[in-house]
Amino acid sequence: MCENNMSIPNFNNIVAAHQRINNLVNHTPVMTSRYINQLAGADVYFKCENFQRVGAFKFRGACNALLCLSEEELSNGVATHSSGNHAQALALAASLLNTHAAIVMPINSPKVKKDAVAGYGAEIIMCEPTLQAREDALNSFIDKSGAVFIHPYNNFNVICGQGTAVLELMTDFPDLDIISAPVGGGGLISGTAVCAKALNHSIQVVGVEPLAADDACRSLAEGRMLPSNNPKTIADGLLTSLGELTFKIISQSVDQIVTVSEESIIKAMKLVFERMKLVIEPSSAVPLAALLEKKYDFEGKKIGIIISGGNVDLEKLPWLD
Amino acid sequence: MCENNMSIPNFNNIVAAHQRINNLVNHTPVMTSRYINQLAGADVYFKCENFQRVGAFKFRGACNALLCLSEEELSNGVATHSSGNHAQALALAASLLNTHAAIVMPINSPKVKKDAVAGYGAEIIMCEPTLQAREDALNSFIDKSGAVFIHPYNNFNVICGQGTAVLELMTDFPDLDIISAPVGGGGLISGTAVCAKALNHSIQVVGVEPLAADDACRSLAEGRMLPSNNPKTIADGLLTSLGELTFKIISQSVDQIVTVSEESIIKAMKLVFERMKLVIEPSSAVPLAALLEKKYDFEGKKIGIIISGGNVDLEKLPWLD
Repeated sequence: MCENNMSIPNFNNIVAAHQRINNLVNHTPVMTSRYINQLAGADVYFKCENFQRVGAFKFRGACNALLCLSEEELSNGVATHSSGNHAQALALAASLLNTHAAIVMPINSPKVKKDAVAGYGAEIIMCEPTLQAREDALNSFIDKSGAVFIHPYNNFNVICGQGTAVLELMTDFPDLDIISAPVGGGGLISGTAVCAKALNHSIQVVGVEPLAADDACRSLAEGRMLPSNNPKTIADGLLTSLGELTFKIISQSVDQIVTVSEESIIKAMKLVFERMKLVIEPSSAVPLAALLEKKYDFEGKKIGIIISGGNVDLEKLPWLD
Repeated sequence: MCENNMSIPNFNNIVAAHQRINNLVNHTPVMTSRYINQLAGADVYFKCENFQRVGAFKFRGACNALLCLSEEELSNGVATHSSGNHAQALALAASLLNTHAAIVMPINSPKVKKDAVAGYGAEIIMCEPTLQAREDALNSFIDKSGAVFIHPYNNFNVICGQGTAVLELMTDFPDLDIISAPVGGGGLISGTAVCAKALNHSIQVVGVEPLAADDACRSLAEGRMLPSNNPKTIADGLLTSLGELTFKIISQSVDQIVTVSEESIIKAMKLVFERMKLVIEPSSAVPLAALLEKKYDFEGKKIGIIISGGNVDLEKLPWLD
């Protein structure tokens, strides 16, 4: 049964999401590196969502959210604001379910991102690059069309979908001690934490974010939401701040949030390219960066890391600057 | 039973090689891309030897060659000339078998390649960057040490080892119509052809090489070995010319050799990074380049491609020039 509300998902909701999306998503492989294990002094298992459809875990959440809509709701289409992986994810999910997706994107979005979204058959609605313009454009479209807004992360069904990655990881590797994932808006770490803690109540869940976009770390420390103010990080998937629902889940279920430097993110990203032969985006490198910086106690442990995606501009790899 | 001679390997030799090396090598995954399948109008199965140890298929041949030596032979160590993947492969294989490897490398080899070989514990013997200097340095070392020379490709046991990649591929995917692999010295395509034809006598085996290093194509057309003269291609693993043994095997068992442009190689390589999220070296992109150029008849077919390796200089990706 689908829900769509601001309550906290439980394990059964994530299992149901997995059954719902299982035929649409890739069961992505888990990869390891002897070199990285030696370097870290731990066994690290990378769940490769860069091999997910559209190149990112976001496809899981988008699929689940759409499959939770009634036929009537679906018939009016779906809409969101995003210039990142959620845009492509929603576009493809809508296309597979034969409905219309409209994506509000700022006019200064890179052409490659607009092309990708258009390539999946979605409608792009341009707006000025301000929060107000974005909300106005989205609301105006929704009023006119009756489309359902699918928030990128502050959405019960999206969070359940994102949790299915760790469900697969912990089914394949049941004896992990730690699970770590990047934190942006918090959808991935929320679904991850709910699922991981249900499967193993003593597992440690560690969120990692760039020091330059550390709203989750500060919010948890203060016990209230403290959004980032104009954050700048190469991890462009992690610029967003927590939402009401993800803040609530993270406060309950995530053991700690640690921060990493831009330099470590670049180093970790290059290490994954060089040693694991995987193309990943900067956001995906953030949990490994925390191991390189020895930001928490993981010596000798089995650590599962969610590689969140692989959509990176190959003309502008950060170590080439 | 091991052999070491200039006779042509048969299927049993490759099966025996696989049993011999099975505990040392990675059973690498096979990956696919909906996008590339649509583009090619065929189903393409990529055997990912970029995930092999040392990042290339060469580790298979080096392991098999060393495991075929007697204890007495092994005790004197092994030696080769290579500035590429065979050097690293032999270095790691020797280290795992507790013997000494000496690698003759030209003084102008990139530091990263020397570091990689040294990192696996091998001895590096520098020489001037000429064929004569290389052979002199190798022979002088072998005379002194009694080490066994392991040729990078013109070696029965090396070829058997390389053939184990397609043995795994065709065991996992038994109904392929075509097998394609890059051609440099010919070790990979030789082992591939022997194994593939034995498993399915009607399978087509297509070798692909850069037009700028097309000695195999010309040699096959003329029916005699015509080495490349100072070839220049970004596919640096394919600069070498066929050897006596690989020429003989290719003449018997490879259906055709086609050539591709440098431009297509770069395009194919970038496509694999972008769409498959795999880091591959230029040589690995050559068989896909032949599909992009529609160099032979493959429409609607199931094609297995060996991705030969992933050791590429990330500071100098060819599309950035």
